[in-house]
Amino acid sequence: MAKQKEVKLLGVWLSPFVCRIKWVLKLKQVDYENIEEEDLFNNKSELLLSSNPIHKKIPVLLHNGKAIVESLNILEYIDETWPQSPLMPQDPYDRAMARFWAKFADEKFITATFEAFASEGEKQNKAIGLAVECLGFLEEQLQGKPFFGGETIGYLDIALGWAAYWLQVWEEVGSMEIMDPIKFPSINKWMNNFVESSVIKDNLPPRDKMVLVLTEYRKILAGFYKV
Amino acid sequence: MAKQKEVKLLGVWLSPFVCRIKWVLKLKQVDYENIEEEDLFNNKSELLLSSNPIHKKIPVLLHNGKAIVESLNILEYIDETWPQSPLMPQDPYDRAMARFWAKFADEKFITATFEAFASEGEKQNKAIGLAVECLGFLEEQLQGKPFFGGETIGYLDIALGWAAYWLQVWEEVGSMEIMDPIKFPSINKWMNNFVESSVIKDNLPPRDKMVLVLTEYRKILAGFYKV
Repeated sequence: MAKQKEVKLLGVWLSPFVCRIKWVLKLKQVDYENIEEEDLFNNKSELLLSSNPIHKKIPVLLHNGKAIVESLNILEYIDETWPQSPLMPQDPYDRAMARFWAKFADEKFITATFEAFASEGEKQNKAIGLAVECLGFLEEQLQGKPFFGGETIGYLDIALGWAAYWLQVWEEVGSMEIMDPIKFPSINKWMNNFVESSVIKDNLPPRDKMVLVLTEYRKILAGFYKV
Repeated sequence: MAKQKEVKLLGVWLSPFVCRIKWVLKLKQVDYENIEEEDLFNNKSELLLSSNPIHKKIPVLLHNGKAIVESLNILEYIDETWPQSPLMPQDPYDRAMARFWAKFADEKFITATFEAFASEGEKQNKAIGLAVECLGFLEEQLQGKPFFGGETIGYLDIALGWAAYWLQVWEEVGSMEIMDPIKFPSINKWMNNFVESSVIKDNLPPRDKMVLVLTEYRKILAGFYKV
């Protein structure tokens, strides 16, 4: 285990943006201290506010007292700091593509999927349509590979990891369907490959607890998304 | 000159997102063919649509026929492909900070500044307030250095380059003031350092032409921003 106790991760257990950091620290066998942010909505901790004064968001990685924020940025930092089990492809074009699709997924796909989860009626249908369109683009990228990174999990797999696990829960709680295994066979295989991988399968939030918390959360969100 | 005629840049002369790519290609002495997109608003070229089918936006870098899109992504690709005159810092933490501030500037600072340029009244005042707040954060980052990259121009200088030139023109055309040299002395020095640097000073769009085009453009935009 590298750099024991010098690495701390500030986040919440339910966040896919936090889990992606956990997966990579585990994949690279970097020991870290997990710090759970207790009340992200009403009472952010002093540590969070001082570590990320600009955005005040989780996750925050603390390494030897220095704070690194924004999850995709943290992934690159970890990959550069602990090069074992590399995440990023070696070829500059492949790296540019991995960064492009990870940004696309964070800006378009997860946004549409989360809006579909949190809304109803016409608004939900529109968001579902956008999310399905995103899945179509991603289906094309796999081209028969087990992972976006090729034979092993890479940067884009980690960035998209939420889609292999959170998506189903959001569909269930939000009473909607985005993922169609017939329409997106490569994505369907990838989802199974991802959640069955060693390290990933042992570092997923408990499904039952997610359903309970997200059911309550959706009731709060419905107010915002109905407007 | 490296890789002659294998590199093409698709863009428009007025775009700061395109100019940042031009600066870096010039700094690294990579020869390239400039392709001006003729009618970005009403009639996007086939080359643009096929090179960036997802976002349909400039700039697009074409290298040996492969398309790389999104300007910050292109900067990293260029830096990895042509390592001479490196843009990115060597230390992973410094790299993470450069990426963080570049993203911050693209998502918050340029958005607020452009909205201030394009709007009026209360909306403009609110946008000016946001842009000034961004400048305050960036002022702190310079800490007496001539450039964000240290003694020479780096990734963050290039990403922020628009603020050293476009900002003044937007202020003039938009009849508003964001940059206060007394309040932001380090940024003020940096702006001068940047536009007076070799390569940069010879690769800025002509100011008079910018004012003319942007004055017309603002009239069109006013309709959107007033809503």
